[in-house]
Amino acid sequence: MTERVLTGITTTGTPHLGNYVGAIRPAIVASRAPGVESFFFLADYHALIKCDDPARIERSRLEIAATWLAAGLDTQRVTFYRQSDIPEITELTWLLTCVTAKGQMNRAHAYKAATDVNAAAGEDIDAGVTMGLFCYPILMAADILMFNAHRVPVGRDQVQHIEMARDVAQRFNHLFGAGRELFVLPQAEIEEAVATLPGLDGRKMSKSYDNTIPLFEGGERGLKEAVARIVTDSRLPGEPKDPDASHLVTIYDAFAADDAARQTFRDELRAGLAWGEAKQRLVALIEGEIGPMRARYAELMAHPERIEAALQEGARKARAIATPFLAELRHAVGLRPMVAVAAPAKAQAATAKAALPDFKQYREGGAFFFKLTSPQGAVLLQSTPIAEGREAGAWVKRLKTEGAAALEGAPVQWDASAERVQVEAALATLVAAQD
Amino acid sequence: MTERVLTGITTTGTPHLGNYVGAIRPAIVASRAPGVESFFFLADYHALIKCDDPARIERSRLEIAATWLAAGLDTQRVTFYRQSDIPEITELTWLLTCVTAKGQMNRAHAYKAATDVNAAAGEDIDAGVTMGLFCYPILMAADILMFNAHRVPVGRDQVQHIEMARDVAQRFNHLFGAGRELFVLPQAEIEEAVATLPGLDGRKMSKSYDNTIPLFEGGERGLKEAVARIVTDSRLPGEPKDPDASHLVTIYDAFAADDAARQTFRDELRAGLAWGEAKQRLVALIEGEIGPMRARYAELMAHPERIEAALQEGARKARAIATPFLAELRHAVGLRPMVAVAAPAKAQAATAKAALPDFKQYREGGAFFFKLTSPQGAVLLQSTPIAEGREAGAWVKRLKTEGAAALEGAPVQWDASAERVQVEAALATLVAAQD
Repeated sequence: MTERVLTGITTTGTPHLGNYVGAIRPAIVASRAPGVESFFFLADYHALIKCDDPARIERSRLEIAATWLAAGLDTQRVTFYRQSDIPEITELTWLLTCVTAKGQMNRAHAYKAATDVNAAAGEDIDAGVTMGLFCYPILMAADILMFNAHRVPVGRDQVQHIEMARDVAQRFNHLFGAGRELFVLPQAEIEEAVATLPGLDGRKMSKSYDNTIPLFEGGERGLKEAVARIVTDSRLPGEPKDPDASHLVTIYDAFAADDAARQTFRDELRAGLAWGEAKQRLVALIEGEIGPMRARYAELMAHPERIEAALQEGARKARAIATPFLAELRHAVGLRPMVAVAAPAKAQAATAKAALPDFKQYREGGAFFFKLTSPQGAVLLQSTPIAEGREAGAWVKRLKTEGAAALEGAPVQWDASAERVQVEAALATLVAAQD
Repeated sequence: MTERVLTGITTTGTPHLGNYVGAIRPAIVASRAPGVESFFFLADYHALIKCDDPARIERSRLEIAATWLAAGLDTQRVTFYRQSDIPEITELTWLLTCVTAKGQMNRAHAYKAATDVNAAAGEDIDAGVTMGLFCYPILMAADILMFNAHRVPVGRDQVQHIEMARDVAQRFNHLFGAGRELFVLPQAEIEEAVATLPGLDGRKMSKSYDNTIPLFEGGERGLKEAVARIVTDSRLPGEPKDPDASHLVTIYDAFAADDAARQTFRDELRAGLAWGEAKQRLVALIEGEIGPMRARYAELMAHPERIEAALQEGARKARAIATPFLAELRHAVGLRPMVAVAAPAKAQAATAKAALPDFKQYREGGAFFFKLTSPQGAVLLQSTPIAEGREAGAWVKRLKTEGAAALEGAPVQWDASAERVQVEAALATLVAAQD
């Protein structure tokens, strides 16, 4: 069985080399593991919580998508999408909101941190706190549960929020599952093993310390200039240096091909390699890895429509899962199309039959066709010509049993008057009628 | 200018005669006023807050929709839809959540009432309080602002929530409107003039007092039995009665054709009309109004698929407004398709042109056609054959300037591979490019 792993990508700020080594590169490597189905999404609904500058939202989202694609995220292999392209997510957020206890949200770390600051300043504890900050663990739960992710790689500060997602999933399963596990209970996967890259001054590389090395910005020259500012001791060329005392070596390690290369660099430093020379080697090493990415990044930034197309394709893949699953969840809570279920007991059986959408197969001009009609006789879905009658029959069967999930790739078209939502509702009704 | 009036209908419980006189009938009358564009919706996302019984949700929603239709709601004239058929509403809820202050929600009446009960019982103030209860004023704001309603008829207890909707609309306009008023600021319209029907015992008719007269349940016999239980004084037939001291007369007044009829009934009571006879007249009067409705109600309940069709049609009308408006709001907050905006300054002009979706008109086999292609050349929308070239041109122009709003009724089809959301995004891009 494949395991689903879901990774949310914050769409604020411009990634630096520390983000690349600490988050982007390991996540991309992990996505190539066998037996893993990876979901990566740009968390732009989350970005709205902290940012009310539309131009910044727009720019960040673009830069970050370009960065991940340039760094080698394989959109054929993974599902890469924008959160805001999946309207099912906010709808699920509301369903979850209705079964989340407020007391639990009062204890969420991110909210607590904000109220602690206010309390310390002698302010009203909720001063400046938006409902976005207060409610975001529910949105996060919807992100995860929408795709029934098994594992969610997160920092330690987010573990509590994954636990909240488990809790709400459990409550929802209990209330509405009728014995079935509608939601998988997700596991937090704490990213402790991942290297934290030191910055220019040896502390953790972070924008807030102003000690970052840029990832793509400023080109190779920008990289050189930043590396030149890495703090070293003042040992002169020829003097033996202690590699284990230098964070320059830690950065080198993060890019070296193997332990042999790491050992060689250490040996050379012990043998008196000049810091200037060491820095040149570091630049060459990093540039060897990220130089080609930077070229791809520039190309993507010049053609945002390519990123848009990749994300639209990702949204299609994601919604092929989200749309039918939400239909199932809606059914579970009672948001169901009005078909015979509630008719008076005697008339029920007859009405139930009359009220079902219907598939018809037929032959025309040598080709086979099928169509789906509403109980009122309106054509909802129309197949394109199909060479084999058996193939037409197989598609009808799949659509009847799998519902909207089988629409992807199905040989169908519908006209502008039939909304996708109607087609999905009709299919959901048929699927339910199979039970 | 027409004024938009929005009325939410709670989908729990079975309506009784008091609901009919106090809410349903006046709302339907008001919807017929000239210059008014009425929106009525089944508030089923709200129903989920208080009810985790899917069968009850389903049954209530059906009964209440059937009641309003049977009572004469004209779905040609008004927009009648299920809240849960408009996915734009939960998405807008999230956009509003991000600009709502938590402090304001702490003061919401419905939440305060729940915490007061807990405090009085010595419990944690949030015991048993769900996030649904805490957040519902934001969902309510989205209900109202999605359609830019000018007026919202509400009970006095809901006035504060309308004020919250005004506040959040104002904040959103200020932050993202760039000088425009994206949202109309809604006005609460307090329903004080509306008659409150007394129940069997003279107190307000209410399920909690167990003093209700059924609306449709139990047929005419049920009505008779209930009216027979109306409490009167013990004056005998022939004895003069004081009409102003009897709530039976108040109920009669609510159904009488005019003041003359009201006066006649009073005169007869003063002249000694027996209570039994008076009750028979009351039954006949009520039955004259609701009898035909009851027949329509039974017919609708036997054919839920007709209600479903009416609601689907309503959802289509509502989404013809909601979908393009949400696209505009998404654009305002920065959730925009990735087109040239963020390309390096020099390449920008060229890329911007290249990256726009494009309409092409052409002629084939004597008919005229147009199609909309994505910047990548994929066909997103394809017209059906059009007799006149001028008509084709006019549709292209409307689609370019009005965007997805013009899709309703446009002579177009698209195939299953182009999602409506893509078409809408492409049109939104074109509309934006016109500015």
